[in-house]
Amino acid sequence: MSKFWSPRVRELTPYVPGEQPRERLIKLNTNENPYPPAPGVGAVLREFRTDHLRLYPDPESRALREALALEFGVEAEQVFVGNGSDEVLALAFQAFFCQEKPLEMPEITYSFYPVYCRLYGIERRALPLTASHEVDLNAFSAGSGGAIFANPNAPTGHGHGRDAIEALLGRVTESVVLVDEAYVDFGGESATSLVARFPNLLVTGTFSKSRSLAGLRLGYAVGSRELIEGLNRVKDSFNSYPIDSLASAVAIAALEDREHFEACREKVITTRERTRGRLEKLGFEVLPSRTNFVLVSHPEHDAAQLFVGLRERGILVRHFNTEALRDYLRITIGTEDEMDSLMEALEAICR
Amino acid sequence: MSKFWSPRVRELTPYVPGEQPRERLIKLNTNENPYPPAPGVGAVLREFRTDHLRLYPDPESRALREALALEFGVEAEQVFVGNGSDEVLALAFQAFFCQEKPLEMPEITYSFYPVYCRLYGIERRALPLTASHEVDLNAFSAGSGGAIFANPNAPTGHGHGRDAIEALLGRVTESVVLVDEAYVDFGGESATSLVARFPNLLVTGTFSKSRSLAGLRLGYAVGSRELIEGLNRVKDSFNSYPIDSLASAVAIAALEDREHFEACREKVITTRERTRGRLEKLGFEVLPSRTNFVLVSHPEHDAAQLFVGLRERGILVRHFNTEALRDYLRITIGTEDEMDSLMEALEAICR
Repeated sequence: MSKFWSPRVRELTPYVPGEQPRERLIKLNTNENPYPPAPGVGAVLREFRTDHLRLYPDPESRALREALALEFGVEAEQVFVGNGSDEVLALAFQAFFCQEKPLEMPEITYSFYPVYCRLYGIERRALPLTASHEVDLNAFSAGSGGAIFANPNAPTGHGHGRDAIEALLGRVTESVVLVDEAYVDFGGESATSLVARFPNLLVTGTFSKSRSLAGLRLGYAVGSRELIEGLNRVKDSFNSYPIDSLASAVAIAALEDREHFEACREKVITTRERTRGRLEKLGFEVLPSRTNFVLVSHPEHDAAQLFVGLRERGILVRHFNTEALRDYLRITIGTEDEMDSLMEALEAICR
Repeated sequence: MSKFWSPRVRELTPYVPGEQPRERLIKLNTNENPYPPAPGVGAVLREFRTDHLRLYPDPESRALREALALEFGVEAEQVFVGNGSDEVLALAFQAFFCQEKPLEMPEITYSFYPVYCRLYGIERRALPLTASHEVDLNAFSAGSGGAIFANPNAPTGHGHGRDAIEALLGRVTESVVLVDEAYVDFGGESATSLVARFPNLLVTGTFSKSRSLAGLRLGYAVGSRELIEGLNRVKDSFNSYPIDSLASAVAIAALEDREHFEACREKVITTRERTRGRLEKLGFEVLPSRTNFVLVSHPEHDAAQLFVGLRERGILVRHFNTEALRDYLRITIGTEDEMDSLMEALEAICR
């Protein structure tokens, strides 16, 4: 604690990301993609003219926004890009949720949302999940200061279909509904096609998961022009150039390789379903997942002890030490070989 | 204006960066370095393992912070890094200046500071420059909510010596003094050696100017451990990983090449002094500069018209359309050839 800190900073409880270990571990803890980014990414780096780095990047990231607009069938003015989807989310909290009314979110969802609430002094209203661990869309109220949830949700893995999102938007019309689609490419249904009809819908996404570019820090939002303009007003009052020239070129190359993208996500989905079956045979309860991870618990084995046992065997998964999640492990879907190692280790521990 | 925007967002007046033109112009408008980054930067890009991009970067940017700590003779815990010094500044405003008391700054300085004040609801107290266009360090008061200024200052170019900063710090001890050293490598005197003795001193810097990496977006802050911890608390409540893996590797390569760095800044300084003499011969008033730009005015020629005349001749400089600066042009120091073209154009316009 320092007397030089702003009063609110003294009260902050920062987000704690999953560990980035220095030693060699099988890393199934931060939902990274086990497959490399598109081959075109390497070509971009090898051919990049470094002299270009002496100039500021395009503050509007026009080329990247146009590439994303093409991808989603919208106009470039309906696309916003940021330094990772965490930055996009933070700017969205400032742009739309700094309201007197509380922001509604599921009790269990991406744990960065409550951190933003504290940073910006936003009141949070937490909505319980349903008995089957799904985001309860009926619980969102029409008169709130906004709604946010991940779909598919993290760390539970369940995803609602587009119809369910549309029904919510039919009811909540006077404040922003933010649907965080970080994991949508692993079997979820995107709501981006609804932005044309619902001016209060903002959909966010990331290059970190399905595009294998977590190390590059690139996220985006798709929405109505008025929502994107709100985001731009905050961005232009914060950092004129959040996207560097290299990141922009790399991201465009990744977007262009649809074949690589499809192949990687299909492999992840196949491995996920195979892993689910193997885990269930070992007695695990595995929540249904439309993401690149599974949330699991075991009736006879303590999750914290499983975490330690796996770590001792060189496998890193995620254990959240909160009341609601302490009986669960979140396991990222890796390669087939990595999942074989996981299963071997679990078999050794559980028998 | 949208009903979905947060109330404060409706009142924002975003910062307007200098134009990044698409056509081929001699670009002397955003204080970029005319020389390319260190040759090692190209090697980093060519040899980078793209598979590494699928993983999140180190959230603490340890390697880069250690390289900067070595550069400044401090501990890594005294160094903070961000996505451009604009982000570092924005996070510092949140960490230290969200106080009830007003933040003091020169009336004329980097024009992003007042924008941050509006974004975060901070009251600003503007201090007039001295008659010779210098930041008036005596005008800062001991009981304010903080002090911020660029040293050397922008867009005036004047820089105070370390002794003057030390005298200020002897007086202002109860709130943070932020010295923005974006331009210090072009002839200024850095205050980083004072951080060991003054726990309320935060010095910020950037790779955009003297390291020729504006396109990469990298800035930093050096200060006491408690100030850096304050910045980390805000950063970890905003974006866990602001620095991407590529940017970190490139920045470290740039820092390692001291010879290239020295050669480039000396060329810029030499060209600046030569340009100053040539401009004065044409009748311009040229403020003394310790930066990579000069602020100039002409008793017989309107600055706005000079701006247009230069643009018509393919040369882009910066004209700020504010009451205090409307008689001036800010001209970035380019290569010798670029300055020859500038002088030819000005001779044609002024005669």
